[in-house]
Amino acid sequence: MVRSIRELAVRGAPLIGIAAGFALVVAARAGASSDELREQARALRAARPTAVNLMTTIDRLLSDRTDAELTFENLEQLMLALFQEDVDLCDRIAAAGQGFLRDGQTVLTHCNTGALATVGRGTALGIITAAHEAGMRLHVVVDETRPLLQGARLTTYELERAGIPYTLICDNMAASMMRAGRIDCAIVGADRIAANGDFANKIGTYSLAVVAHAHDVPLYVAAPWTTIDPACAGGDGIPIEERGADEVRGFADSRQSLVWSPRQARVFNPAFDVTPGELVEGYVLDVGFVARGAVGAGALVRAHAQGLQRAQAGRPTASH
Amino acid sequence: MVRSIRELAVRGAPLIGIAAGFALVVAARAGASSDELREQARALRAARPTAVNLMTTIDRLLSDRTDAELTFENLEQLMLALFQEDVDLCDRIAAAGQGFLRDGQTVLTHCNTGALATVGRGTALGIITAAHEAGMRLHVVVDETRPLLQGARLTTYELERAGIPYTLICDNMAASMMRAGRIDCAIVGADRIAANGDFANKIGTYSLAVVAHAHDVPLYVAAPWTTIDPACAGGDGIPIEERGADEVRGFADSRQSLVWSPRQARVFNPAFDVTPGELVEGYVLDVGFVARGAVGAGALVRAHAQGLQRAQAGRPTASH
Repeated sequence: MVRSIRELAVRGAPLIGIAAGFALVVAARAGASSDELREQARALRAARPTAVNLMTTIDRLLSDRTDAELTFENLEQLMLALFQEDVDLCDRIAAAGQGFLRDGQTVLTHCNTGALATVGRGTALGIITAAHEAGMRLHVVVDETRPLLQGARLTTYELERAGIPYTLICDNMAASMMRAGRIDCAIVGADRIAANGDFANKIGTYSLAVVAHAHDVPLYVAAPWTTIDPACAGGDGIPIEERGADEVRGFADSRQSLVWSPRQARVFNPAFDVTPGELVEGYVLDVGFVARGAVGAGALVRAHAQGLQRAQAGRPTASH
Repeated sequence: MVRSIRELAVRGAPLIGIAAGFALVVAARAGASSDELREQARALRAARPTAVNLMTTIDRLLSDRTDAELTFENLEQLMLALFQEDVDLCDRIAAAGQGFLRDGQTVLTHCNTGALATVGRGTALGIITAAHEAGMRLHVVVDETRPLLQGARLTTYELERAGIPYTLICDNMAASMMRAGRIDCAIVGADRIAANGDFANKIGTYSLAVVAHAHDVPLYVAAPWTTIDPACAGGDGIPIEERGADEVRGFADSRQSLVWSPRQARVFNPAFDVTPGELVEGYVLDVGFVARGAVGAGALVRAHAQGLQRAQAGRPTASH
């Protein structure tokens, strides 16, 4: 599972949390001791340092449990609940996101935030597919999302399947489309949202946020409460994973690979970037919409507490 | 030659002008009549509508000539002079560009503007290689420049050969490097500069200009006087070539090709974008440096006239 997360065979902040949790369930079924489980949890956490959902899910699975409670049955029961919870969180995000979309609009999105990134229908892309299912006519502009091309490969695939019209562009084309008035709003996901509204997301999100702001195109961030990190005061506290140079020197998938730059080319390849909260119009969360202006008064930290409280009230916990 | 220009086997605004001119010389040697030459000139002009150097070179070769003057000998003599002129223009641009670079700086560039884009040492990249040769220690951040990856393929190659340290990035990473204070300035070329300072250049330049402006990173445009179009009042008057969808659906060169998005994916693929002059710190021309503030008073139109005058005074013209 560590390798699958590192290689992005499993990706999307919510989905890697769930997948990592099930890896621990499988380890428990194979007879791993509580020490072994905690050791494996450490390795899983290190596989993707930026996405806080991974940490949140592992904490919910292992923290505050005695060794005796870390049984296969307990862990499986909890993970099945968290699996179902993710479906529910996505539906709630989609519902909260219907307010700002209008029939006939063109929406830009970055990376992949749909059913391939979550257990449920997705976060940012889930808002779009839900609106489409409700009869709204939207056109989606898809950032290809270099270097790993999740937009070109995955978001286009999901939009094709959903029958939603889209236009694929290179990331560097969004600004001129905005200048031409061809983009009504942008919706992206997040890998970690700090208490002050700064958020980490796929590399290129910050660039998108700057050009959107310069053209008065509102940018919305869609995420479940599990993506909020109330212990993280601001974006400077979010660790950014740097990945291998080959991802930028060319492109590779499971079937084919191609290198177009010098093989020894020195490369900078941060997997994520941090966007300051000032550039965000609002946060579309499972617990509702949080406008930028409410963040200073602690709205994101409260949203996290509200989500946690609902989860604890409505969901089974490990039996003690 | 039309095919070579369309396929970008020959690219770079100054170089396609010279290459197209020599195509007419070759046609004249093969016995083309003046009517045939003018017809071929029309086809060549249409091969790359955005780059004005193509039009300028063809005009200098064919305009104001009687049919009797359009001989192989005359055309060859003129094109050899224009060939040498391009070397000289590049050197003058490089000299004019030394003023704003400082030892130890990191300079970002987009696309390829070096010896592979001109007859001489290049425009934006020529400034960098000349500074390096003069002993200045620079680090170059290279935008890969999707979709055709001229930065990743060509600029890295030129920098490797010149022994200049560089870092290759995806276009969407420049903004976060600027936010981290890691870019001192950006230098780009141009395919056409309007009288008011708006300029067309490789797609992604406008996005770069917006993020540079947001981070107070100065953006310089380097070009010969032949890139200025005094008849074009502003950026709205510059035609933008749209290219095929396959360039965005994947990547292909002469040896290999790869498609990573759905084969029927709808794509928007403008080859260029227009950057408003307000985002430019200054224009590094063969006739000298023009600061943004001087453009309103007609400095670019005067620079064009000055370049034309120098060319007419110092260079052989077709014998009458």
